[in-house]
Amino acid sequence: MGAVFDCTRLLEETVREHRKFAERGQVASYIPELKKADPKMAGVALMTPRGLFEAGDTDVYFTLQSISKVLSLLVALEQRGIESVFAKVGSEPTGDSFNSIVKLETSEQKPLNPMINAGAIAVCSLIPGASVDERFSHIADLLERILGRPIDIDESVYKSEAETGHRNRALAYFLKDINGLEGDVGEVLDLYFRQCSILVNCADLARIGMFLAAKGIGEAGFPIVSANAVRLVSTFMVTCGMYNGSGEFAIQVGIPAKSGVSGGILGVVPGQYGVATFGPALDRKGNSVVGISMLRRLSEVLDFSIF
Amino acid sequence: MGAVFDCTRLLEETVREHRKFAERGQVASYIPELKKADPKMAGVALMTPRGLFEAGDTDVYFTLQSISKVLSLLVALEQRGIESVFAKVGSEPTGDSFNSIVKLETSEQKPLNPMINAGAIAVCSLIPGASVDERFSHIADLLERILGRPIDIDESVYKSEAETGHRNRALAYFLKDINGLEGDVGEVLDLYFRQCSILVNCADLARIGMFLAAKGIGEAGFPIVSANAVRLVSTFMVTCGMYNGSGEFAIQVGIPAKSGVSGGILGVVPGQYGVATFGPALDRKGNSVVGISMLRRLSEVLDFSIF
Amino acid sequence: MGAVFDCTRLLEETVREHRKFAERGQVASYIPELKKADPKMAGVALMTPRGLFEAGDTDVYFTLQSISKVLSLLVALEQRGIESVFAKVGSEPTGDSFNSIVKLETSEQKPLNPMINAGAIAVCSLIPGASVDERFSHIADLLERILGRPIDIDESVYKSEAETGHRNRALAYFLKDINGLEGDVGEVLDLYFRQCSILVNCADLARIGMFLAAKGIGEAGFPIVSANAVRLVSTFMVTCGMYNGSGEFAIQVGIPAKSGVSGGILGVVPGQYGVATFGPALDRKGNSVVGISMLRRLSEVLDFSIF
Amino acid sequence: MGAVFDCTRLLEETVREHRKFAERGQVASYIPELKKADPKMAGVALMTPRGLFEAGDTDVYFTLQSISKVLSLLVALEQRGIESVFAKVGSEPTGDSFNSIVKLETSEQKPLNPMINAGAIAVCSLIPGASVDERFSHIADLLERILGRPIDIDESVYKSEAETGHRNRALAYFLKDINGLEGDVGEVLDLYFRQCSILVNCADLARIGMFLAAKGIGEAGFPIVSANAVRLVSTFMVTCGMYNGSGEFAIQVGIPAKSGVSGGILGVVPGQYGVATFGPALDRKGNSVVGISMLRRLSEVLDFSIF
Repeated sequence: MGAVFDCTRLLEETVREHRKFAERGQVASYIPELKKADPKMAGVALMTPRGLFEAGDTDVYFTLQSISKVLSLLVALEQRGIESVFAKVGSEPTGDSFNSIVKLETSEQKPLNPMINAGAIAVCSLIPGASVDERFSHIADLLERILGRPIDIDESVYKSEAETGHRNRALAYFLKDINGLEGDVGEVLDLYFRQCSILVNCADLARIGMFLAAKGIGEAGFPIVSANAVRLVSTFMVTCGMYNGSGEFAIQVGIPAKSGVSGGILGVVPGQYGVATFGPALDRKGNSVVGISMLRRLSEVLDFSIF
Repeated sequence: MGAVFDCTRLLEETVREHRKFAERGQVASYIPELKKADPKMAGVALMTPRGLFEAGDTDVYFTLQSISKVLSLLVALEQRGIESVFAKVGSEPTGDSFNSIVKLETSEQKPLNPMINAGAIAVCSLIPGASVDERFSHIADLLERILGRPIDIDESVYKSEAETGHRNRALAYFLKDINGLEGDVGEVLDLYFRQCSILVNCADLARIGMFLAAKGIGEAGFPIVSANAVRLVSTFMVTCGMYNGSGEFAIQVGIPAKSGVSGGILGVVPGQYGVATFGPALDRKGNSVVGISMLRRLSEVLDFSIF
Repeated sequence: MGAVFDCTRLLEETVREHRKFAERGQVASYIPELKKADPKMAGVALMTPRGLFEAGDTDVYFTLQSISKVLSLLVALEQRGIESVFAKVGSEPTGDSFNSIVKLETSEQKPLNPMINAGAIAVCSLIPGASVDERFSHIADLLERILGRPIDIDESVYKSEAETGHRNRALAYFLKDINGLEGDVGEVLDLYFRQCSILVNCADLARIGMFLAAKGIGEAGFPIVSANAVRLVSTFMVTCGMYNGSGEFAIQVGIPAKSGVSGGILGVVPGQYGVATFGPALDRKGNSVVGISMLRRLSEVLDFSIF
Repeated sequence: MGAVFDCTRLLEETVREHRKFAERGQVASYIPELKKADPKMAGVALMTPRGLFEAGDTDVYFTLQSISKVLSLLVALEQRGIESVFAKVGSEPTGDSFNSIVKLETSEQKPLNPMINAGAIAVCSLIPGASVDERFSHIADLLERILGRPIDIDESVYKSEAETGHRNRALAYFLKDINGLEGDVGEVLDLYFRQCSILVNCADLARIGMFLAAKGIGEAGFPIVSANAVRLVSTFMVTCGMYNGSGEFAIQVGIPAKSGVSGGILGVVPGQYGVATFGPALDRKGNSVVGISMLRRLSEVLDFSIF
């Protein structure tokens, strides 16, 4: 990577050239609140040891959605241990969509991995706490330590999801039926909807990416989570982080990444830097069209791929 | 069919010879209350224009469970019309088990038929009423008119199902997500669990069978529901009434029938009589082992089959 | 049923009113030879103890296709016995399409029933004979005895299927892999393609229907196959004869029937008469649009339904 | 990695400690010839710029089986181009087993990726040539250039597969039916069975691994295939190389790898070296039990993981 001004210019050019691809996708419609997003928005940020570089709509706040699965998985791994987690979720990628229920019935009767909705709900059920507030504080604390600022949730998105998340409720009750969800279904879903509603911007995502690239070391230079948990989560981000588009993303971009249906993508260039994009128009697999397009470009220029 | 004493003797012999097959099955375990049933019980009843014949444990009350699907489908057809019903459920049999969720995702996005759980829950959502009580009264009224007596529900089975019916909740929320369930999910499930908990005995089931055999004419000689609704329901009982054992049952017994996981089977010999069996030990498809065995025997002797 | 001239007039009116519905369907395209059929053709025939009544394109010859499954199942049941047959095929209807392979892998590892392609191929493998010619002669003999005339196959359809029947080959090899097909895969498929290519017209199908309605008694008054085999086959025709449209057909028409993708439908009104239709335009489940439409009409007028 | 003697000792210890885990698996049984392998065999080899290190049964020859998919994919990518290849196969991992046919019907109607059997057969169909011999020579040539020696196939394994490979025939005909296989089905399968029957030993696999680790540069220092094709194939090896055990392998070992049912595993430590194991006892997903166990150990000691 070249000098400072080069990097910013690269990001600006990237946003300028790729913003138009938004028209190939559609803003998420299944959570009513998400429909309000402007599909034309596009932002990109790079967090490096030398500092933050950004371009485009990087000051816009959006909800984490599925990107939160990375955080709760880290919490569950740290608080409950690897064995407890893998007693409830598998570690295999799947060709099915992120909210599919089929494999729960036909397969091994546990979610194939922690990055699909069913798996993430199972992981949420493992986060300890006497109340939803207490459970949520583990996730919030982790994120606040990474970002170095207090975090908040988008109340209207949270309510919207809680009211309309029928598919997620179906997944949770199915898990309960097959002994795949600890505790109360309503509480676990509440926790899941809250973590999905955490507000971040593109720069925040790049900071999370840098934290993972540094194997769990925070900006202050101290470890926040264990390197082993980070390695596990990074591996899942490669094999299943982009839903059932993970295989193609591995080929085209080649880094651990996690997308959310609000349009964010969190990327990790191991040992080097964090990279993040924002663009609310999604392809039919649920990944940001502009985001993937920009990351492909950056991967070519900056030689991202770990493969 | 021969003289009165012959019929009773046939039924008594049938119970005596077939009761032992209970050991080939198991009492339903997924609703905790149902586990308490004595697997050795066996009863059979025949309701004919000449009166009721019965043998074995015919005075034991048990809950309708899936047999209630016949009643709510009749109510929905009468109150909402054929088109409204078939907008929400299909009319095809399925090779999948009664509580399967797979086809909701992979197939036409509505339950394949009203005899599987997902379809029956969708049908319940169509029964009109400002409250669950009002909705339930339609089903109760129909059954009370058929039986000529007030009916009741088993409160402990009802509570047991409401607490543990996670799979049915999963089905209901999935339906809600695909726009397949009208109104409030909790209310619809409450109605479904109530109808499943209605108490009957073997003789009651035989009376329901006679009512269907008479194309909807009650014992007093007046029509209670339309002949067309009865024909539709009878057809479903042939193609899907015995879950994914319906095809084999059609071959071996050959009459419209509906089983429930508490061990009852409601049978219809069109234009002739109603026949019912009771025996709580189930095969792995959820049908009474002793019941099917007795009905096969009776079908041979009395030449039941409509085929 | 009224006087002779009434019946013919009813059939003529039926053809006249329903022929136009052909435009709602499409001629089968997956066997190249079948594409040549004129979608506007429509014919109907009724074979009764009083003789044959017919209207429309009843002199047009077409290939049996799936209707041949009825004949080979009768042969297999008579020659090999019920147990041998059901060791290789199940007896349950399915919500999947006629050429689906999914359930072979996910389900009980045998075809769900003998009316889907996989099941019919398994049944063909059971027909005895030292050569394909010898095996085929059993099927041909049965049909010749029913029709009282020599039969023939359409060589170009036969060749067309043999060359392009890749899906059927896939099904056959899958069966071989799960030990569900006796003997040589190529020979069994050859037999299957030959039986599918047998030439009949609408009147022939009505004669087959009458033979089944008479429980296996031929026109000469002597039994050709056992009543029990006919009852079994008739039951399958109700639960699975119209592919994954069987449930709807049971509701709308209500008789044992078997359709073929060349446009024929063979119907049985048990104890009364045979009924057959022809119309090459198919709905998306593979059943003749005009055929089903005419049978619905006739079922209303002549009160066909066995339910 | 330490001095030469250390490496050999590490490999020897690894074989000694892990050989016993063979008892947790079973030798592949679906190809009759493979059943003859001794489950107790265990070998490991490391090919580095400094030379080859090996321990255990590394002189035993076995057939490539699925490891050959790596070679034919390289040939197809080089000869036909990326677009032609991805027109016939997808790039997504799958939770289904390597010989599953389900997704071909329910999903996007092309194999999910080139590492499952269906995908590899589709890839074989893309390898150009006027005859099977000519097509096969492309694969053989590539391998001979990598290994620097003439290669051979195991005729009895080849014949055994050709005679009993019914499931692969089913997959191939299904592909043909959905327009997913170019040319003649029999020829393509012949090619597939031949590539599966190529004989190698553990050291050979380590050499292939080194060749991939060096991004396509052969031992003589010249490029044999393009770096981009190697990157693509390496990515597939991570996301789908170990069948539906790829996700767990990524977590536990963390390198591009490809297993075969004869017991070999080909591993790549990008930019560093090739690593290979041999052990015929397989887990239920089809991967060598001893091989995975040894690779986990080596990954811990040598810090293999790319994540």
